[in-house]
Amino acid sequence: MNLSYKDQRPVFGGFKLTRETLTLRAIGIDTYHENVAYLHRSCNIYRVEGFQALSKIEISTNGNRILAVLNVVDDESIVNSDELGLSQQAFKQLQVEEGCSVQIDHAEPPKSMGAVRRKINGERLSADDFMSISNDIAESRYSKMEMAAFLVASGQTGLDRDEILYLTRAMLESGEKLDWREQLVADKHCIGGIPGNRTSMLVVPIIAAHGMLIPKTSSRAITSPSGTADTMEILAEVTLSPERLGDIIHQERGCLAWGGTAKLAPVDDKLISVERPLGIDSRGQMVASILSKKLAAGSNHLLIDIPVGPTAKVRHMREALALRKLFEFVGDRLNIHLEVVITDGRQPIGRGIGPVLETRDVMQVLQNDPLAPFDLRQKSLQLAGRILEFDPDVRGGQGYAIARDILDSGRAMAKMNAIIDAQGRKENPSFAPGEIFFEVVAERPGHIISIDNYQIARVASMAGAPIDKRAGVELFKKLGDPVSEGDLLFRVYSEFSANYEFAKNLCDQHNGYTIGEEANIPSSFVAF
Amino acid sequence: MNLSYKDQRPVFGGFKLTRETLTLRAIGIDTYHENVAYLHRSCNIYRVEGFQALSKIEISTNGNRILAVLNVVDDESIVNSDELGLSQQAFKQLQVEEGCSVQIDHAEPPKSMGAVRRKINGERLSADDFMSISNDIAESRYSKMEMAAFLVASGQTGLDRDEILYLTRAMLESGEKLDWREQLVADKHCIGGIPGNRTSMLVVPIIAAHGMLIPKTSSRAITSPSGTADTMEILAEVTLSPERLGDIIHQERGCLAWGGTAKLAPVDDKLISVERPLGIDSRGQMVASILSKKLAAGSNHLLIDIPVGPTAKVRHMREALALRKLFEFVGDRLNIHLEVVITDGRQPIGRGIGPVLETRDVMQVLQNDPLAPFDLRQKSLQLAGRILEFDPDVRGGQGYAIARDILDSGRAMAKMNAIIDAQGRKENPSFAPGEIFFEVVAERPGHIISIDNYQIARVASMAGAPIDKRAGVELFKKLGDPVSEGDLLFRVYSEFSANYEFAKNLCDQHNGYTIGEEANIPSSFVAF
Repeated sequence: MNLSYKDQRPVFGGFKLTRETLTLRAIGIDTYHENVAYLHRSCNIYRVEGFQALSKIEISTNGNRILAVLNVVDDESIVNSDELGLSQQAFKQLQVEEGCSVQIDHAEPPKSMGAVRRKINGERLSADDFMSISNDIAESRYSKMEMAAFLVASGQTGLDRDEILYLTRAMLESGEKLDWREQLVADKHCIGGIPGNRTSMLVVPIIAAHGMLIPKTSSRAITSPSGTADTMEILAEVTLSPERLGDIIHQERGCLAWGGTAKLAPVDDKLISVERPLGIDSRGQMVASILSKKLAAGSNHLLIDIPVGPTAKVRHMREALALRKLFEFVGDRLNIHLEVVITDGRQPIGRGIGPVLETRDVMQVLQNDPLAPFDLRQKSLQLAGRILEFDPDVRGGQGYAIARDILDSGRAMAKMNAIIDAQGRKENPSFAPGEIFFEVVAERPGHIISIDNYQIARVASMAGAPIDKRAGVELFKKLGDPVSEGDLLFRVYSEFSANYEFAKNLCDQHNGYTIGEEANIPSSFVAF
Repeated sequence: MNLSYKDQRPVFGGFKLTRETLTLRAIGIDTYHENVAYLHRSCNIYRVEGFQALSKIEISTNGNRILAVLNVVDDESIVNSDELGLSQQAFKQLQVEEGCSVQIDHAEPPKSMGAVRRKINGERLSADDFMSISNDIAESRYSKMEMAAFLVASGQTGLDRDEILYLTRAMLESGEKLDWREQLVADKHCIGGIPGNRTSMLVVPIIAAHGMLIPKTSSRAITSPSGTADTMEILAEVTLSPERLGDIIHQERGCLAWGGTAKLAPVDDKLISVERPLGIDSRGQMVASILSKKLAAGSNHLLIDIPVGPTAKVRHMREALALRKLFEFVGDRLNIHLEVVITDGRQPIGRGIGPVLETRDVMQVLQNDPLAPFDLRQKSLQLAGRILEFDPDVRGGQGYAIARDILDSGRAMAKMNAIIDAQGRKENPSFAPGEIFFEVVAERPGHIISIDNYQIARVASMAGAPIDKRAGVELFKKLGDPVSEGDLLFRVYSEFSANYEFAKNLCDQHNGYTIGEEANIPSSFVAF
């Protein structure tokens, strides 16, 4: 081997002056949120350019460009060596015809990952950093792995309140914004953590029936067994175009739609698609997510509900107050009139947990059914009352009475039916829960002294909610109720045997109920 | 709508007593580290069980089970509705024939994600937590997103030294362990960050020529332009089975192989496959990665090299000392004799950066070529000397002279050739760098007062290293050298024009060299 330096001096070979192209082919594979490109192993470009399976590539044609993950194909019937295959979503996103010429290239890593690495190292990020991260996510430049890194890094050392403001603004800028051209556009949001807490489906019809504009957009469940959008979906379409949404709201003064596909704050939805499977939920991310969505939906008056209780998301009053101040700080700087109410979060609200079971509770309240869950009715009326008082014509303290009148008179039910019809009524919705169920009974006599929100939510999730609409938990006893041995505490419904088994195993370990002395029933430390 | 409670009482439908099966089909798609399963949209199981594209499923047959990500297919020529398709790696991992019956099920989320979430919240994890995480990763239960969450969470608030010990032990337990049945099994490792630092390829032949056992296994580059395994691959096979590895080491007393496919600490390799694209590299993870790999390879005497310099991984002496103590703490508890040397990390070592260019430097030193880079030779002799002194028969302080004698006499070159032959010599390796290159010259006269390790490494990476073996950077001036205006500082080689452009753009922004007054050349603050 002669390795002297001179002999190895390379000869300059010049550039490739033309770039090779491939013929686009649509592949009948659905890869959901992730774009996948298929290249044959014997494709010339694959060999020459040093691509690797699972590396990210950029595909361009006529000025359109998308990013995709590369899969390498050894089967000519899927793609041949002159073709580039794209999975369904990727093909749709590129917006060109099959057979057209495309070029491919190594995707540059998203520039804003530098800021994410600085965050991992504990640095504070600037408004520009958050804007770059948000833009790169909006343009699908982040893999799920990269989004996970951002979420964990910004969740852990936490974002300071200015950073949360920057993030909120960046997420807001990532999508379309609605403008209702009205002085008073109301909305409400609960930070979550309380199973069965479907107050929005009562508050919205009440407020809209009063004539106040309440263009409620809802997220789907992140880690809970159901979100308002998941539950509303039993009754009506929730996936609406911005145009549809606008028409409905102008006509009905309110709606109960999913914000996801409406192109409002799309970065929020992408982040949620990572938060959900990871089961993480950080405070700064939560504030940014809620406020960016509400602002994008054009709200200028917002009521935030923070439930507090030993198994709620917020467990102490001091924590609830800190969170309230954080909402107020960001809200004030983004020009939204924001009020925060701190509510009783000691136990689930209503009887049902899971889309179908919750719908039943909501409809019972709307129908003034004497069996309707009292706590769901009361809480909804309290919240609706607070929102009604945003109206300058409503005297301070009169909101609750007006809300109750709207509900009792049937005007809320009528409005709900109008909203359902406007969004698209589901034909013959079934309110029957899943056919496979088991029951959990009291093992000793006494009083119910605690119901673990988190555990009941997990049981409902394991049972299949919210993906299986008919799965969930139905509670027969609530806090403070006396029980005898063998009394039914709750019933768990599934659609599939695998879910039944997951949920059953979980309940066998810990069913979430504690039975004890009447004296030990905790009093609510919230005066609401 | 009649929604009264009684009417909705479900009828118990009983369980499905038999489970449907699908016929296994191998799909000619290479999805690298990620298992992918293909199910037709009209497949009965897909519809009934509520699977979703991109959800994780478990596939089982005859007691074998694997996890895979689900893609939904609309093309009968890929899979039909009775079939389950598997990507190449997934099919291989399941270890059964095509056409055999398989069952599928929702994959349970990895149990240990609960511990990861506790880590995200800043909690300290137990030895058992780390063991569960490591087991779940070893069994491919973690997605890349979940591994990213673990890495970021444990990198950010940091692991305390006991947690690092637990993690190291868990990673060590995840794979096979080699036992050499000898009292003295040596190894060395540099924490990295210094481009061109290929001392292992000199130290191993010297130590093995002395007769001391040094079963060196190397990682591939994480964020650098080349790892020892990437560079050694120019000369020999580096992907060896544990059996091959054992035979070679018994015969030659040393080897230069990649630890990845040798089933030693496999969790480390999986984590590296996430760390690399994210560009993160945490201290605790580094210590656990290095020590688990070395212990799994059966070493009981280890020399760790920590380079310190203004652009090295470790920038201050106090940081180097803290890291030394961390290595000592974990090493002592895992019964390895461990010594740490702190070395001069002010600039790259040798002339070449990138697999081919580094190989040339190494071969020049082994061949006692007068043009061989002096710093690479000196540092390698110093490190080899320290390792030789692990031998009870070597008098303290004599190691360096023995190492030099082995190198100068040609015994190191002879041993290197023997190792190359044993691992599998590459036929006619080319040492020619990439054919597309550009040069960076001095813009003013003066002395080189700094060379930015990080920037030079980035230029080499952008140029294509280590994936393109012939890409990299060749340095013509080092720290302290006098230069005139227009003198060649370094040359950058690529194999592809896209890489040329990435690297060129980067150099135009900042080329990594600073030219200044002779008085400002920093002195090494390491006495080594």
